[in-house]
Amino acid sequence: MSALALLDYASVLVFALTGALVASRAQLDLVGFAFIACLTAVGGGTVRDLLLDRHPVFWVGQPTYILIAVAAAVLVFFTAHLVESRYRWLVWLDSFALSISVAAGSGAALALNQPPVVVVLMGMATGCLGGLMRDVVCNEVPLVLKQGELYASCAFVGAVAAVLASGLGLAGLPALGIGALACWVLRAGSLLFGWQLPVYKSRPPRHRP
Amino acid sequence: MSALALLDYASVLVFALTGALVASRAQLDLVGFAFIACLTAVGGGTVRDLLLDRHPVFWVGQPTYILIAVAAAVLVFFTAHLVESRYRWLVWLDSFALSISVAAGSGAALALNQPPVVVVLMGMATGCLGGLMRDVVCNEVPLVLKQGELYASCAFVGAVAAVLASGLGLAGLPALGIGALACWVLRAGSLLFGWQLPVYKSRPPRHRP
Amino acid sequence: MSALALLDYASVLVFALTGALVASRAQLDLVGFAFIACLTAVGGGTVRDLLLDRHPVFWVGQPTYILIAVAAAVLVFFTAHLVESRYRWLVWLDSFALSISVAAGSGAALALNQPPVVVVLMGMATGCLGGLMRDVVCNEVPLVLKQGELYASCAFVGAVAAVLASGLGLAGLPALGIGALACWVLRAGSLLFGWQLPVYKSRPPRHRP
Repeated sequence: MSALALLDYASVLVFALTGALVASRAQLDLVGFAFIACLTAVGGGTVRDLLLDRHPVFWVGQPTYILIAVAAAVLVFFTAHLVESRYRWLVWLDSFALSISVAAGSGAALALNQPPVVVVLMGMATGCLGGLMRDVVCNEVPLVLKQGELYASCAFVGAVAAVLASGLGLAGLPALGIGALACWVLRAGSLLFGWQLPVYKSRPPRHRP
Repeated sequence: MSALALLDYASVLVFALTGALVASRAQLDLVGFAFIACLTAVGGGTVRDLLLDRHPVFWVGQPTYILIAVAAAVLVFFTAHLVESRYRWLVWLDSFALSISVAAGSGAALALNQPPVVVVLMGMATGCLGGLMRDVVCNEVPLVLKQGELYASCAFVGAVAAVLASGLGLAGLPALGIGALACWVLRAGSLLFGWQLPVYKSRPPRHRP
Repeated sequence: MSALALLDYASVLVFALTGALVASRAQLDLVGFAFIACLTAVGGGTVRDLLLDRHPVFWVGQPTYILIAVAAAVLVFFTAHLVESRYRWLVWLDSFALSISVAAGSGAALALNQPPVVVVLMGMATGCLGGLMRDVVCNEVPLVLKQGELYASCAFVGAVAAVLASGLGLAGLPALGIGALACWVLRAGSLLFGWQLPVYKSRPPRHRP
């Protein structure tokens, strides 16, 4: 199995778990769990494949991805009540899924010899958009927009790290692994130690008409 | 006209009516009605065509679809005040649109000889995503996420029924009709008799940070 | 540079400014600004290119677009506190972005010899969908759905004007410029003088189950 397929499998599995956890917060039934899990799991990679005109889209060509996402949804449906804080699990699993899928997105663009800017954007889109669809559809505050946390920044750093490692001659899994690691370390630091960038502060209260 | 085109026309018409009804709830003007009607009517089928790399996308190749959706929007704009409960109309029209478009999505994938898992997913995506876009854009609670109702499950059963009927040698409209019927019976039963699957119940109240 | 590329550049720049302004209302950090700016700036044109099967997607083939969007985000991050009413800036910049991108969308479809209905839809989709994504993701009321204002109608009129001007023998920038101007005049009139179409009024209060 190629490095890229491996990352796609891992990302699908972990994102599906996060999708199912959000479904549990919305109190859906088993099919609803599977629906949200699949949307989350393949959303980012699907956008990547459409943008890069890679056909068949990864899960259309290899439906095993879908079976993995469904299995993850079933697992969460029957076990989520066992965990103490589903939100904590959600955030941490999402940090792994983000990191892996940033690497998968960057890798797909690198394999097509795209320029660095496109590689970085594909990494960010693949990493962020699945979770964003999950949160928008389920009406949660998107993790990518949470204040006081690094999220898109982690995806950015991870994708840039993958580009640099690849530019330095590393190939395949090592370069992508460095990208995933950089992304995850930054995200974990933000969650554990409150690392953040300065945010924009407006002076008066926001007035919405 | 092929069975598939027939289903696409019917699905566009009925989904456009539901989109216009939601637009009436948001008190938009006539162009707003047409905009939401078109988004709802072609949303699911467009995603299906992009995923399967079917070009031109069905309504780009045959703009009559759009004219039908616009006509439906105009009809609703001038008549919606005549009906007693627009929400009830919305839900029931949506049940027909869901059933027809699940069949249309499954049929498109079957015609491309996709494996059963992909056929089922295309049926579900075509059926659920147009209405999901409508509800997300108009800030309604997505029907697919409503608690205590079967929705994604109906799409799943309809698509599986179409796959089975097709596998048993039925072709074209009969197989797809069985899928649509299975989907609709289940959805109608859920609306009329409260059929549902067990939903996930968390123990403590959901704490969102 | 072709007329179409010029319009795409202008539209990306102005839409990116609006995205960054919405990011400032959500109090994101610099990377969040860039993320929302890019989503808004390329969202509509990306949908257009996917629907018309134009590959590479405009910003994948020419990443300068992304650098422009990022520069706009940086600019807004450091200067938005200087303006009195960010919402007013947002609405007016959005009116320019809408007009330019309606012309860009229509032009792309005209260049592919699409029929008039498709040209109009591509103009409307390119103009409206970037801002719609911005507003849905950031949980703002979508401008396209604001009551008592013309928005989708302006996109419609602009795209129709571009089709007519092109049908009358004007080519390239002049025809598209007429479309952009028609769209903008209507939008500005709506903002300044309250021009609007009759909206649908239901009789009883909306009852949502």
